[in-house]
Amino acid sequence: MANSDHVSDAQRRLDGFATHRGVMNERIGEIEHLGIKRFFALDGAAYRDGALDSKTKELLGLVASTVLRCNDCVDYHLLQCADAGWTDEELYDALNVALVVGGSIVIPHFRHAVATIDAIRANEIGSETDGD
Amino acid sequence: MANSDHVSDAQRRLDGFATHRGVMNERIGEIEHLGIKRFFALDGAAYRDGALDSKTKELLGLVASTVLRCNDCVDYHLLQCADAGWTDEELYDALNVALVVGGSIVIPHFRHAVATIDAIRANEIGSETDGD
Amino acid sequence: MANSDHVSDAQRRLDGFATHRGVMNERIGEIEHLGIKRFFALDGAAYRDGALDSKTKELLGLVASTVLRCNDCVDYHLLQCADAGWTDEELYDALNVALVVGGSIVIPHFRHAVATIDAIRANEIGSETDGD
Amino acid sequence: MANSDHVSDAQRRLDGFATHRGVMNERIGEIEHLGIKRFFALDGAAYRDGALDSKTKELLGLVASTVLRCNDCVDYHLLQCADAGWTDEELYDALNVALVVGGSIVIPHFRHAVATIDAIRANEIGSETDGD
Amino acid sequence: MANSDHVSDAQRRLDGFATHRGVMNERIGEIEHLGIKRFFALDGAAYRDGALDSKTKELLGLVASTVLRCNDCVDYHLLQCADAGWTDEELYDALNVALVVGGSIVIPHFRHAVATIDAIRANEIGSETDGD
Amino acid sequence: MANSDHVSDAQRRLDGFATHRGVMNERIGEIEHLGIKRFFALDGAAYRDGALDSKTKELLGLVASTVLRCNDCVDYHLLQCADAGWTDEELYDALNVALVVGGSIVIPHFRHAVATIDAIRANEIGSETDGD
Repeated sequence: MANSDHVSDAQRRLDGFATHRGVMNERIGEIEHLGIKRFFALDGAAYRDGALDSKTKELLGLVASTVLRCNDCVDYHLLQCADAGWTDEELYDALNVALVVGGSIVIPHFRHAVATIDAIRANEIGSETDGD
Repeated sequence: MANSDHVSDAQRRLDGFATHRGVMNERIGEIEHLGIKRFFALDGAAYRDGALDSKTKELLGLVASTVLRCNDCVDYHLLQCADAGWTDEELYDALNVALVVGGSIVIPHFRHAVATIDAIRANEIGSETDGD
Repeated sequence: MANSDHVSDAQRRLDGFATHRGVMNERIGEIEHLGIKRFFALDGAAYRDGALDSKTKELLGLVASTVLRCNDCVDYHLLQCADAGWTDEELYDALNVALVVGGSIVIPHFRHAVATIDAIRANEIGSETDGD
Repeated sequence: MANSDHVSDAQRRLDGFATHRGVMNERIGEIEHLGIKRFFALDGAAYRDGALDSKTKELLGLVASTVLRCNDCVDYHLLQCADAGWTDEELYDALNVALVVGGSIVIPHFRHAVATIDAIRANEIGSETDGD
Repeated sequence: MANSDHVSDAQRRLDGFATHRGVMNERIGEIEHLGIKRFFALDGAAYRDGALDSKTKELLGLVASTVLRCNDCVDYHLLQCADAGWTDEELYDALNVALVVGGSIVIPHFRHAVATIDAIRANEIGSETDGD
Repeated sequence: MANSDHVSDAQRRLDGFATHRGVMNERIGEIEHLGIKRFFALDGAAYRDGALDSKTKELLGLVASTVLRCNDCVDYHLLQCADAGWTDEELYDALNVALVVGGSIVIPHFRHAVATIDAIRANEIGSETDGD
């Protein structure tokens, strides 16, 4: 795969999402609501090492997000999954489960996910060669 | 946990589901429709060893079924997950991800899943002691 | 297909649903709420002949109900579709679209639909031979 | 409305749900999983008096449960709503919002909800006359 | 909170949505389809004063839209809720119910909602000072 | 209807979607995953002539996509439906079924669909007059 347009499009999209997510999470942090604070804490804790390790849980989060068809959630969990060390082939295999369970209505989100994976990998190569 | 009522209720429920599933899958096998046959084949194949092993994929199927709130699918994947060797603590940890992603609307299906796990384990003990 | 258990089970289920639906629709008719009355009227009107004929619309209603995974709605539209003259092969072809769009999570509802179709056809044969 | 069959059916259904819910919540209480315990605590807390009073929040929970089409959740919130003092007319008006937002796929759950309301009211009258 | 970027972004987004909504509703008004016209009328009527007042119903619409994860619907109901006089703290409390019922998959829509609330309030202050 | 802004907006949107869809489907074609390849093949096959003709199946796909609220899927099936010869009035009648089944949460997708239909028709007129 060449570093084609869909990769740079997805990188711009991921950058925009990261900025928006950061700004809004900070803004939400200002809201004095115990329930909301606790919900965000619980969400973070759900993916930490427990009986299952964090790596496996991120893959569960990816598949759950994909069948529920939430692109922002798919992107978030793909970034976590790549950090956790899942390979492209493993991510495709997980997304295939989501495709079969969730049906063709999942296809636009599958396209989105593949573009995100390509952008994450291009970025990894980019940061590795940054050191050169 | 004693072998309480909720366990025998869930065992009866699982038996009824297994019978219904068997009868209807046989009936569906009689339908001459290539698309339907292929869909069922594709569904079966999605959980076989690949880049991810079958055990991991069954856990993905369980979480996908739980957030999509399908009790029959939850039961099916719990049976597969128990066969694949996941422990109770690991299953609870996976179901917790489903609970956090899918919200309190998942709780009735979580109750259902816990009853099913108890029935599966009671049955395992039952079949082990059957040999005595 | 023999007139097997799954057919008589489905016939009992359809009878129970018809009774419950009748009783509750009558009960709901007693509620003095203009919005609710109008919603039920609008729902009935959506399937009448228009630019599309009623027969086609019932098939649309069946597929919509199947991908949204509502067994009662599937049963209702299958009864209407059988009345409208759709054959088994046509209904399977429509349900296959629902299966592909909605994924394997639809399978339990597909099993339900096939049992309902068998019960409807057995009943049709039954009522034809009633006259003998 | 006479104390008709649909009312006693719904009362039996509510009793069965209350028993199952009690048994399973106790069973879930035995599970040593911090995330699950916290999720249940957070769910309980979401309906307590805050900027909005508990009565209003239960109505929000009812409408959320209805558009998400979870009968057990609908029953739970209807019991809470009746306790909180919402009248039948107010509950119908809230369910009408759910019907319009969620569409005709909600109708089976609307029927379920109306039967539950009737059973709750019949029970209230029953317990009042118990004292005689 | 300063009148930060996320506020002006959300204001532009709300303006774009208002324009698109206006143009398309006018366009839809040209379609000669009685069912469609009645559905839109019924949708409007569902939020008028009845057994419940309009203010309460808009909050119900907001929570229903949030758990069903429709950003345009969330924006529409937030504008109505602000007009009806709900405070930020009350809106957060309602959104918290939606978060707990609908789970972490709702979080991107919660972020969206908080940005919309900030844009609505900034606009209110803007229009008040316009008169100066 | 004049060839107004919403039409050129929708045409730009459809062009962007066609490009993205083409690029990503080619990219997905490079992925060596038998399950994914078969799922895409099965999806294509579901709309070919069978017991039901392709034209009817595209309408089923449109309604399924609309009630499941997937704009990209709605656009794809509207393009196929227009190719298959469905008129505007027939498409509105199908979308009305989707609106009634799926509720007001479908309205933003209905607006989207109407804009897409207008863009498709404007394009058809455009290509016819291209020959002049």
